[in-house]
Amino acid sequence: MSINQETVRQLPIPELARHCAELGIGGVGLWRAPVQDYGVERAAKTVHDAGLTVTSLCRGGFFTVADPDARAAALADNRAAINEAAALSTGTLVLVSGGLPAGSRDLHGARERIADALAELAPYAAERGVRLAIEPLHPMYASDRCVVSTLGQALDLAERFPADQVGVVVDTYHVWWDDTVSAGIARAGAGGRIAAFQLADWVTPLPEGVLLGRGQLGDGCVELRWFRQRVDAVGYPGAVEVEIFNPALWARDGREVIAEVADRYRTHVA
Amino acid sequence: MSINQETVRQLPIPELARHCAELGIGGVGLWRAPVQDYGVERAAKTVHDAGLTVTSLCRGGFFTVADPDARAAALADNRAAINEAAALSTGTLVLVSGGLPAGSRDLHGARERIADALAELAPYAAERGVRLAIEPLHPMYASDRCVVSTLGQALDLAERFPADQVGVVVDTYHVWWDDTVSAGIARAGAGGRIAAFQLADWVTPLPEGVLLGRGQLGDGCVELRWFRQRVDAVGYPGAVEVEIFNPALWARDGREVIAEVADRYRTHVA
Repeated sequence: MSINQETVRQLPIPELARHCAELGIGGVGLWRAPVQDYGVERAAKTVHDAGLTVTSLCRGGFFTVADPDARAAALADNRAAINEAAALSTGTLVLVSGGLPAGSRDLHGARERIADALAELAPYAAERGVRLAIEPLHPMYASDRCVVSTLGQALDLAERFPADQVGVVVDTYHVWWDDTVSAGIARAGAGGRIAAFQLADWVTPLPEGVLLGRGQLGDGCVELRWFRQRVDAVGYPGAVEVEIFNPALWARDGREVIAEVADRYRTHVA
Repeated sequence: MSINQETVRQLPIPELARHCAELGIGGVGLWRAPVQDYGVERAAKTVHDAGLTVTSLCRGGFFTVADPDARAAALADNRAAINEAAALSTGTLVLVSGGLPAGSRDLHGARERIADALAELAPYAAERGVRLAIEPLHPMYASDRCVVSTLGQALDLAERFPADQVGVVVDTYHVWWDDTVSAGIARAGAGGRIAAFQLADWVTPLPEGVLLGRGQLGDGCVELRWFRQRVDAVGYPGAVEVEIFNPALWARDGREVIAEVADRYRTHVA
């Protein structure tokens, strides 16, 4: 099990590392902004000195802009993200691929621009030991965050590239509702494409803006154990990362939240 | 073009009918609650005397409860809805099939209970000249309103029954994001399964609860004209119904809203 940093964003990196180590959790997923604030090399040292691995870095992406200058800036920023992932010794850079540009209605064009960006970035990443991981986001984010909405779409994109260069993220929050997800996981596993597996539960009502409504494990309606068993069955060798954006968890003591997540994990996932 | 009653819920049925007729709109989609309040026979007479057809009645469904008493009540209520549809001389009863029962995580079981309910209700409806229309709802409603989330799923269910008994609804708000929707529309058209075609645009940010965020035609990112052309191309013979739940429209003069919808329709759909 790994704790994604945003699950306990109230914790500075040293406390995050210390509490995880004390609670027997072997990995953390990190985010670029807090890592940059703390210092990339310093974050790497702090986490590794605590005996933890970095299971993923969030996030690159936002590849769908059409304007050439904005596009060049996005690619440069993604190269920086790849460098940061390499410095953190994580093999996985999670991508939130981008929504529709302002005023555009062209989903197909946006998806093709993602493929173009992957073609430019994947070799650069591979040279640094980093695999790009396309995360399909729930269709409610299709217009403003990610036009890749299903695991099947993510695989259609990833499979244009070598498996060691481009993989996919299976995040229960985003894909739980999809009746084709079992087949998608099998396809991803057979191709060695599952780069990350993330957990959050689905709870309603959704909050305004629908970004911060991810539920604590067991509080919602997702068959979390079924998902864990499915990715296990298809040979996913990596960490199970718990990623919950929820202000109610951020308002609590961070160590207590990590302990609760670990407990919920035992009850609902393991 | 047809105006769904909920687009201008501020209008009583006589004003709805009068304004539509004056503005050259040939149909209305009605909802059970306001029709019951006004009187079913009286509503039928008011609308028909204005020269309008009733393009659909919303809504039956909520078939996913497992408790036998609740299930019997749901079936009885759906028979009443079918009778109301027949009394309104509409051939289409739109179904919102239901979410997961409280505490359940069993999407497959819920979907099978929908199929069981359709098997009970479809012949009853057909005898009364009413076709049941399964509406796939956006995946953000999967837990609490409708476990049928894609056009493909809706067709998988509908195709277990004769095409004149069970069809599907294509509502742009629910399916716009899906890269398989073009194939789904072709499949639905070839099978004579498109029972209703509804329009709303997709705008963000989504409001809390995500129910009342449907956008006026042209305000969002949906290729509305592409959808209209697609359903035309596969031989859909019915009305194009505009269904927008949006408090900003409800706060305005209802006749003005209908006129604006008609204008937007000409610009973005026709």
